[in-house]
Amino acid sequence: MRNAADREIPERIGDHAVRPFEGAFATSQTGAKARRPQKFAPRHEEKVLPTIEAAIEACGLSDGMTISFHHSFRDGDRLINQVVDACARMGIKGLTVFPTALFPVHEPLIEHIRSGVVTRIEGSMNGPIGAFVSEGGRLTEPAVLRSHGGRWRAIEAGDIEIDVAFIAAPQADVYGNATGIHGKTPCGPISFSAVDAQYARYTVVVTNDLQPYPVYPMEIQQGWTDWVVEVDEIGDPEHIVSGTLQLTRSPTNLRIARLTAEAVVASGAFADGFSFQGGAGGISLAVTKYLGDEMERGGIVGSFGMGGGTKLLVDLLHRGLIRVILDGQAFDLDAIASLRDDAAHLIIDPGFYANYDSRGCATYRLDAAFLGATEVDLEFNVNVNTHSDGQLLHGIGGHQDVAAGAAMTLITVPALRGRLPMILDRVTTVTTPGEVIDVVVTERGIAINPRREDLKERFAAAGLPVRTLEEIQAEVKRLVRPAGRPVFGDEIIAAIEWRDGTVIDVVRKVEGWE
Amino acid sequence: MRNAADREIPERIGDHAVRPFEGAFATSQTGAKARRPQKFAPRHEEKVLPTIEAAIEACGLSDGMTISFHHSFRDGDRLINQVVDACARMGIKGLTVFPTALFPVHEPLIEHIRSGVVTRIEGSMNGPIGAFVSEGGRLTEPAVLRSHGGRWRAIEAGDIEIDVAFIAAPQADVYGNATGIHGKTPCGPISFSAVDAQYARYTVVVTNDLQPYPVYPMEIQQGWTDWVVEVDEIGDPEHIVSGTLQLTRSPTNLRIARLTAEAVVASGAFADGFSFQGGAGGISLAVTKYLGDEMERGGIVGSFGMGGGTKLLVDLLHRGLIRVILDGQAFDLDAIASLRDDAAHLIIDPGFYANYDSRGCATYRLDAAFLGATEVDLEFNVNVNTHSDGQLLHGIGGHQDVAAGAAMTLITVPALRGRLPMILDRVTTVTTPGEVIDVVVTERGIAINPRREDLKERFAAAGLPVRTLEEIQAEVKRLVRPAGRPVFGDEIIAAIEWRDGTVIDVVRKVEGWE
Repeated sequence: MRNAADREIPERIGDHAVRPFEGAFATSQTGAKARRPQKFAPRHEEKVLPTIEAAIEACGLSDGMTISFHHSFRDGDRLINQVVDACARMGIKGLTVFPTALFPVHEPLIEHIRSGVVTRIEGSMNGPIGAFVSEGGRLTEPAVLRSHGGRWRAIEAGDIEIDVAFIAAPQADVYGNATGIHGKTPCGPISFSAVDAQYARYTVVVTNDLQPYPVYPMEIQQGWTDWVVEVDEIGDPEHIVSGTLQLTRSPTNLRIARLTAEAVVASGAFADGFSFQGGAGGISLAVTKYLGDEMERGGIVGSFGMGGGTKLLVDLLHRGLIRVILDGQAFDLDAIASLRDDAAHLIIDPGFYANYDSRGCATYRLDAAFLGATEVDLEFNVNVNTHSDGQLLHGIGGHQDVAAGAAMTLITVPALRGRLPMILDRVTTVTTPGEVIDVVVTERGIAINPRREDLKERFAAAGLPVRTLEEIQAEVKRLVRPAGRPVFGDEIIAAIEWRDGTVIDVVRKVEGWE
Repeated sequence: MRNAADREIPERIGDHAVRPFEGAFATSQTGAKARRPQKFAPRHEEKVLPTIEAAIEACGLSDGMTISFHHSFRDGDRLINQVVDACARMGIKGLTVFPTALFPVHEPLIEHIRSGVVTRIEGSMNGPIGAFVSEGGRLTEPAVLRSHGGRWRAIEAGDIEIDVAFIAAPQADVYGNATGIHGKTPCGPISFSAVDAQYARYTVVVTNDLQPYPVYPMEIQQGWTDWVVEVDEIGDPEHIVSGTLQLTRSPTNLRIARLTAEAVVASGAFADGFSFQGGAGGISLAVTKYLGDEMERGGIVGSFGMGGGTKLLVDLLHRGLIRVILDGQAFDLDAIASLRDDAAHLIIDPGFYANYDSRGCATYRLDAAFLGATEVDLEFNVNVNTHSDGQLLHGIGGHQDVAAGAAMTLITVPALRGRLPMILDRVTTVTTPGEVIDVVVTERGIAINPRREDLKERFAAAGLPVRTLEEIQAEVKRLVRPAGRPVFGDEIIAAIEWRDGTVIDVVRKVEGWE
């Protein structure tokens, strides 16, 4: 069938019927959330177990079950491999791994997929595992990719059931309260796991810094935690840095950043109480910096900036340019220090941040957001999941949630990357539909979604180079030879869920190149 | 039938079967919690409504529904009367009022009970409403009284369903985030309402200090809040002070406090990492003060003190004698200021504090607790609900939760109040069973529960006046004439739930006095 993003999707994927994407805010759930398990604790029970293996046994983890993890250590994570290795040693097979995201550090999982220890993945696969899965035939069911808010929603809706949640905790107490902002190796908030901890049949907190009761803030609460394990290593905070942490130095990217900041200033939303979110990429960081300087110059005090927390966002808070930072994950160590020290730098969880099935989330309060893309197309659709070679190499992150929520969403993307044009007739994969994208900013001009005619005059008045996507695309086409395109097979290797649980696109096996 | 507290209870109360009390930790729920409603928010929706009446309409509140409230303003609350008055004006009848507690300020509800606007109460009724209900024939079903943890559990278990939660919020933002520790009239934590807000079909935040987005800490979250109403007055913080705020000056009570502190010190638990909870009554405050001085003298640093937060507890934190305060409600304005200023003074909710159906709660980590009583009996059962005249005048509060959780629970009670002996053969009402009471401290000696033989030698070695309850009772009997006793009718006016949802006792209509 064809969905509202004009994509061909199957009626069923694996064992469940596909709900097709109908539009960014077309569905509304009015039923009830899934039940959470009722738990019991004998009085004065001790919860500390000596090893991960002991926890696996205590939880009765066995063939075919689902285990979940957070990604706050990103490429520095040391827990997922430890747990799956332990499962493999204990002879457990057929696991579904349900992480918030996988990174290159998790490449050893490929062997566990080959050997049948892991047969299914529901979660983002950044890098080698995505490439491996893109070859087809690797998993018994297609992977499911969800946004941060979408994953929270899916658990609360009962779309996926977790048998055991393993939570890497930089600090935990003996009774199972845990946080990511203290300890020997803080990684920033671990609140992504709060919903796992509440819904999983068993919750295991794994820490390298076990402390007496009580550890706080209680991102993970004692009432949810069944067992606590102390290990030598859960992750390396030096690797939490996601992608580029430095401001871009590329003249192309600096021009995009400058144009983006100017577009925000010209949009009419740039006034006291202004709120925004940028990502951690080099362009986003540069936009944040430019906007901060504009706020200072204009005497504007913003209401909140949203993270991934970065040194740059913290700097705006310290300069009094924003009142609050709402932060679901830390992208550098300065952000973690600020989470400890600044009362107005708040840990939020993905439910608060972005849950579609709620009476409102933080992204809906954003005046502006600037987000990256691997590709955009003439319908303003955005792809952040697959590369132009068709390989599934990135997760959704908060892209859908922020784009859908913000009053103005600007996509920052170079019109050319190397010899490849990034404005296509049709994106390889639709991650985020054009209906929630307001502006595309390239080094060759700014394109405004026809839905936002109101911005056209404002941008023109500010002397910004407003052009159509078609014009930019045509200009770029004259500079490069036509690029090849991947050839896809029939096998669906992943479904891309929209944040309401409908399927907006699927990713198929890559068979070649033409 | 007779339950494990040796009380006669009916098989059914109103429309549900009674589960009889089986013992303090005898039941274990291993099923699932009740479903929470799935909600939806259109993008960029405004939630602010002009009046309480408008919110009542928006929620479709009508005959026979259940409305809930918190008690953080205690006798200064101005919301419950406003809401029920509005319902009465709008012609709504047959409401169940489900507060965490009612106070003398809510006496106007009596007229609404007489007129049929309110036909049922599930919650504590301190003072005149309790006396009114004690007369019998006032409510269509018996009231149900629950502990703080028990109320949280009951909502999560689906024992009671809330149609509309009205939440008095000293500060709220336009999107429904709310807190009790900021604003024009802060009342301390409003986290008692967090479970109401998550389970109610509709949640209405009512504030006298509406602010731009975002207000924090988000004790109540935007994702749970349907509507926000701004009114002139929600409560008077001068009246949050519960009972005696001052240290007792009565020589009898001071002697009890001194003996209690000495018993704690002699118990063996008084060492680094010590944790405790006292209440806000004059005796408890004096014990807290004595213990603080003992800690300072002994160079002991406690792990946590639990509140109701008070100036005295804050003082221990500031002197470095405890590391953390866990606080579910503030008993004075100094505690509220400290919640704002001290990072180690944490807001907790009643689920974290005391939920039986969880993998453990904060009261289970208490080394010692000292709690009051209106009566105790020779089986160490404690009554805090009814007076010796049989009238239902007090709620349970956290009494059951703390007594059950603490490794050592001491009941502080004068052997005589005026001319009435407080050690009875049988308490008028069993609130908390003797099996979780370790020690009873009176001005005439300290009685140790036979289950705690281990304490006997320690107390004797410390020169404490250890006696049996029978000895103390006999001594007091010689001083006063036998007191009269209330005569009860058949009608059950209230059920006292144990914290696991079983019924530990019932309160019957008072018919006279003999």
